[in-house]
Amino acid sequence: MSESTLGKAISCRAAVCRKAGEPLTIEEVRVEPPQEWEVRVKILCTSICHTDLTWWKMQVPGPWKPRILGHEAVGVVESVGTKVEGFKAGDRVVPVFQSNCETCTGCRSLKGNNCSLFAELGLGTNFDVAGRDGTSRFRGGVDGEEVLYHFLRVSSFCEYTVLDVAHVVRIGDDIPIDKACLLSCGVSTGIGGAWKVAEVEKGSTVAIFGLGVVGLAVAEGARSRGASKIIGVDLNPDKFEMGKKFGITDFVNPKACGEKSVSEVIKEMTGGGADYCFECVGLTSVVSEAFNSSREGWGKTVILGVEQQTAPLTFNPYEILKGRTVVGSFFGGLRPKTDIPGLLQKHADKELNLEGFVTQEVGFEDINEAFKLLVQGKSLRCLVWMDRE
Amino acid sequence: MSESTLGKAISCRAAVCRKAGEPLTIEEVRVEPPQEWEVRVKILCTSICHTDLTWWKMQVPGPWKPRILGHEAVGVVESVGTKVEGFKAGDRVVPVFQSNCETCTGCRSLKGNNCSLFAELGLGTNFDVAGRDGTSRFRGGVDGEEVLYHFLRVSSFCEYTVLDVAHVVRIGDDIPIDKACLLSCGVSTGIGGAWKVAEVEKGSTVAIFGLGVVGLAVAEGARSRGASKIIGVDLNPDKFEMGKKFGITDFVNPKACGEKSVSEVIKEMTGGGADYCFECVGLTSVVSEAFNSSREGWGKTVILGVEQQTAPLTFNPYEILKGRTVVGSFFGGLRPKTDIPGLLQKHADKELNLEGFVTQEVGFEDINEAFKLLVQGKSLRCLVWMDRE
Ligand SMILES: NC(=O)c1ccc[n+]([C@@H]2O[C@H](COP(=O)([O-])OP(=O)(O)OC[C@H]3O[C@@H](n4cnc5c(N)ncnc54)[C@H](O)[C@@H]3O)[C@@H](O)[C@H]2O)c1
Ligand SMILES: NC(=O)c1ccc[n+]([C@@H]2O[C@H](COP(=O)([O-])OP(=O)(O)OC[C@H]3O[C@@H](n4cnc5c(N)ncnc54)[C@H](O)[C@@H]3O)[C@@H](O)[C@H]2O)c1
Ligand SMILES: [Zn+2]
Ligand SMILES: [Zn+2]
Ligand SMILES: [Zn+2]
Ligand SMILES: [Zn+2]
Repeated sequence: MSESTLGKAISCRAAVCRKAGEPLTIEEVRVEPPQEWEVRVKILCTSICHTDLTWWKMQVPGPWKPRILGHEAVGVVESVGTKVEGFKAGDRVVPVFQSNCETCTGCRSLKGNNCSLFAELGLGTNFDVAGRDGTSRFRGGVDGEEVLYHFLRVSSFCEYTVLDVAHVVRIGDDIPIDKACLLSCGVSTGIGGAWKVAEVEKGSTVAIFGLGVVGLAVAEGARSRGASKIIGVDLNPDKFEMGKKFGITDFVNPKACGEKSVSEVIKEMTGGGADYCFECVGLTSVVSEAFNSSREGWGKTVILGVEQQTAPLTFNPYEILKGRTVVGSFFGGLRPKTDIPGLLQKHADKELNLEGFVTQEVGFEDINEAFKLLVQGKSLRCLVWMDRE
Repeated sequence: MSESTLGKAISCRAAVCRKAGEPLTIEEVRVEPPQEWEVRVKILCTSICHTDLTWWKMQVPGPWKPRILGHEAVGVVESVGTKVEGFKAGDRVVPVFQSNCETCTGCRSLKGNNCSLFAELGLGTNFDVAGRDGTSRFRGGVDGEEVLYHFLRVSSFCEYTVLDVAHVVRIGDDIPIDKACLLSCGVSTGIGGAWKVAEVEKGSTVAIFGLGVVGLAVAEGARSRGASKIIGVDLNPDKFEMGKKFGITDFVNPKACGEKSVSEVIKEMTGGGADYCFECVGLTSVVSEAFNSSREGWGKTVILGVEQQTAPLTFNPYEILKGRTVVGSFFGGLRPKTDIPGLLQKHADKELNLEGFVTQEVGFEDINEAFKLLVQGKSLRCLVWMDRE
């Protein structure tokens, strides 16, 4: 963050993912300076979202790429590219995997949160790079010249990272870092899912499949909107205790339903099905169960979980015809640049509870411990501090 | 309609469906008096909706039931059951397959148009009967004692029919019969699909799959809301000429797309996909094509077509996650008792165009001719007059 690094590569530590499912290795890497539309950011803290786990475990087709994972974080701008406006060194920022360029068709429309910037550049599904030119800013390996890939255009498991301006949101210096980190992905996705995608309203019934941070943030969103019954579904019974603080009123463990399916149990509990069902696991089979738990006439199933394999979703056409809706979204339908500051304001105004989501904190060198806690279902979010005092 | 029939069975003509796909036979039948919650109605005119074709052709599982089809009609109340309020002999009515009891949970809720009356009685999917007691009012056959089944709780292919009050809507005596008949099913479904389910707005792009009455009513609904581009998709090229009057601006014939899929063509025509896609055919494969034609970020696919077989609908989870919505509805999400009079008022106020949907008219004895015209794609709606002067 000093003059000395400006325009030069920075050498620093990264947790590199070299083999599917194996511990990340802390390595010395080189982080190139930001290009025209990019900012280089010193990461203050990061956390692990289930999407990191999914990619970490994934047997991707084609040759495996060494990669720097991580996409939930808070940082400080170190330097900015020549075309960047609105950011300067020292700004506190939240990186977000969901781009929001504010100029493309999607960003200018009034609907949804789809930014078509990268799609228009032909990079729609290439999350392996930093920004608009389609290349990486990371070098490492034994000879120091190996290309290390980005992840979701964020890569926060590194002391420094480079992000396209469309992927960075400026926040105030007085915002608590831990709370801001939560809004970088999981909590925003859940809150947005409840508020913006489903539009949960007072007195409605809600069923949430998967009580990680995403599912519990849905609960917090539903609770704050006055839902009368919030049913949590999880294979891990510990999640019920954790869930109560976020408004979960009832718990269903699929392993304890006996002869009945989860959807049968939920239909009984709600007298016909929940008004809103949320899939926050990332499994096709769970989407089906959520859909089957939704009420005839107006039940809405919101898909937030991300699939590891692209097994197709299947629905009975008659059940959709009975007035049901299925909708999916990334980042809970929120637009990062305006909605993250909005959520922080709601938190300041005590309309949004962000307590309880951070269950552990570790130093960067213990990042694999944080992975383990999430895999074992022992954490919601474990904060990983890059410089732990 | 005279005192002489009150409380007695009426002998009259019906077009009976005895074998899948074979011409209906005009037979003498006996129509029992209405029970407590029922009204007996003299049918003035009826028309053929694709759903009649589907059931007519269907190789239903289990033993074939002789049945009186028909569910788009206008009639006059002949007599009413002891518990019926708000209807009296001489009232002009529109029968509707979608019940609307105005007292159940669904009818009292503010959402959708799901009436749970029959579901609560355990008759949710039994459309083969007249009303709440689960029995038929029709007798016929050689010995005059054979039970003839109802269809969608309407059965309008008969000079008299018996309907539960939840399936009847009163209309004014001055309403043109032909226009009212259209609102009994197909046109209401399409208009409701555009206005209530999709909420098409000014400047949006629309793709309609299947240009029968349902699809063309969607077009009329989208046109009246100011959609900027309304693409019609149909295998029958004649439908483009027919469609222009209802606002179709562009036509796609799947057989004339060459190497490209229909969705690729529509994505090109709309710069990425239509804002709203409507399935008005009733085929799983067409639903997929409609979904794939919908715009990333906010595209909505509305399913109105009814499946002949219940082949499951399949979707790629990532494509839903990109902010797409899939929603289905019966009767276009409209509530018959309030929305049919509403649409008639809009027609009177010249906000809703109902011209052009009736393409032919025949007498009851020629009802098989009307079937043929629809099967061959030569008609939108052919009115069948019970007493043709
Ligand atoms: N759409 C988005 O923008 C977005 C953003 C963030 C995360 N996600 C996805 O959301 C999902 C949840 O993320 P998270 O960080 O909260 O995960 P998490 O690992 O913290 O929580 C997942 C929970 O699901 C439970 N679970 C697993 N299998 C289950 C089953 N069959 N039935 C019920 N519960 C089951 C686990 O016990 C766990 O409690 C993941 O798929 C993640 O990739 C999507
Ligand atoms: N949801 C409801 O409440 C409701 C109400 C009425 C009708 N429906 C259903 O809506 C559908 C349409 O009814 P209709 O009366 O307008 O039917 P119709 O027979 O008048 O029109 C159907 C149209 O689809 C076209 N078509 C057939 N296969 C096609 C394909 N593969 N691609 C594109 N076009 C194709 C035909 O050429 C025809 O023009 C039917 O499935 C019917 O059962 C549903
Ligand atoms: Zn995430
Ligand atoms: Zn954008
Ligand atoms: Zn119909
Ligand atoms: Zn009802």
